[in-house]
Amino acid sequence: MNTEEIRQRIRTGEHTGPTSGISGDKVQANLAILPKKYPFDFLLFAMRNHKPVPIIEVLEAGEFVSRYAKNSDIRTDVPLYNIYRDGELVDTVDDIRPYWSDDLVTFLIGCSFTFEQAILDEGIPIKHIDQGVNVAMYKTNINTEPAGIFHGETVVSMRPFKQSVVDDVIRITNEFPSMHGGPVHAGDPEMIGIKDINQPDYGDPIDIAENEVPVFWACGVTPQNVVLNAKPEILISHAPGHMFITDINNEEYKN
Amino acid sequence: MNTEEIRQRIRTGEHTGPTSGISGDKVQANLAILPKKYPFDFLLFAMRNHKPVPIIEVLEAGEFVSRYAKNSDIRTDVPLYNIYRDGELVDTVDDIRPYWSDDLVTFLIGCSFTFEQAILDEGIPIKHIDQGVNVAMYKTNINTEPAGIFHGETVVSMRPFKQSVVDDVIRITNEFPSMHGGPVHAGDPEMIGIKDINQPDYGDPIDIAENEVPVFWACGVTPQNVVLNAKPEILISHAPGHMFITDINNEEYKN
Repeated sequence: MNTEEIRQRIRTGEHTGPTSGISGDKVQANLAILPKKYPFDFLLFAMRNHKPVPIIEVLEAGEFVSRYAKNSDIRTDVPLYNIYRDGELVDTVDDIRPYWSDDLVTFLIGCSFTFEQAILDEGIPIKHIDQGVNVAMYKTNINTEPAGIFHGETVVSMRPFKQSVVDDVIRITNEFPSMHGGPVHAGDPEMIGIKDINQPDYGDPIDIAENEVPVFWACGVTPQNVVLNAKPEILISHAPGHMFITDINNEEYKN
Repeated sequence: MNTEEIRQRIRTGEHTGPTSGISGDKVQANLAILPKKYPFDFLLFAMRNHKPVPIIEVLEAGEFVSRYAKNSDIRTDVPLYNIYRDGELVDTVDDIRPYWSDDLVTFLIGCSFTFEQAILDEGIPIKHIDQGVNVAMYKTNINTEPAGIFHGETVVSMRPFKQSVVDDVIRITNEFPSMHGGPVHAGDPEMIGIKDINQPDYGDPIDIAENEVPVFWACGVTPQNVVLNAKPEILISHAPGHMFITDINNEEYKN
């Protein structure tokens, strides 16, 4: 099935769940939709915090067709959306057209699925994928560089790897600088302000074996977190794991 | 003399002319200052047109100290500024404090001085520098990707080089992707819509010898041109050749 057909299935409700693994080698994107008065601050925040907020595309106010996804409609082509008002989750829907207005600007943001695929392609297993759970994510003490009304700490995702493959994993993910890039930290979680590695702030916990090292990447939840701190009157995002599927090959983001 | 001292001399009027060659290996920047209602469109335009508009820094509304220039004041540290109203040049001044307001956002944009220095450092002469004239610049038929109210064609700078060094020049400038990067064209000017190579739209004409090839780079005049098309109530820019001097080493932009 090609990506246009997958988006069609999502739009018509034939596919309703998470999108992990359903788009082959095509880029999946995080979604953030904001009223027109915030996007300068947001784009500047993204520019200053490239690792956690790698922008793939900006749809200008009122636009809902991605140039990187043929015949797409970002208002219907994500399986599940979260609606936040004044920083609080108020609704979860599969169609945001009732919330849509010509005042809304859409950001598509790179996602770790791209570098995870590259890791898998080199024959290195990823534990949370094998266990069929969500990746573990944590708030840290790593400050982002603020921009306008947006400020806050970096959220990271963590994947445990055997010590023997850590260098390979660093090399592979460094090859995708526009998709979170290389890790921000490997080893002791406390060094980046994580008190209890067994209690992630988002996603599912995962055990770290004796011969494994926890490796941490800047995570696409960072911008959502930072935006919610600012309590905008509305923020629309994808529900975790329910991404927007583009027609871009992952390889196009390889340096 | 260090760059802080040079800025001090410019601020006090001890240095008044162009800045070419006075900052050693330090980055010089183009300047564009716009009211707060335009910067989202401008930053998006820059993101979509990275070659002609490589952003070094954004100073948020009302800010006038560059984080890349110690004790700087963007309102006084450029030798000469142009003031445009509704797309027309209305004044040329050495101090913009009378025009300043907390509503103004400042963009520092990369400049070809960085890659020119790298070319010179490899022992390759640059003709307009040897002749002490301004680089020749031309409007082209190469469209930029529009963003919001901003649209228009790419402006290019042209430097003639002997055929034998063209590959070196391409290689060297490709190493500075955040400072206009490699050329957009080499050879026949007509292919990019330049009717008469002897009549540049900006800067000074320069002759091209029999054994020389004209090489064209995306130019920092592009954003100024595109902004003026949109006729904002005010645009403040540096006067051509009168740049803002930072404390950043050119080498930091080398890939």
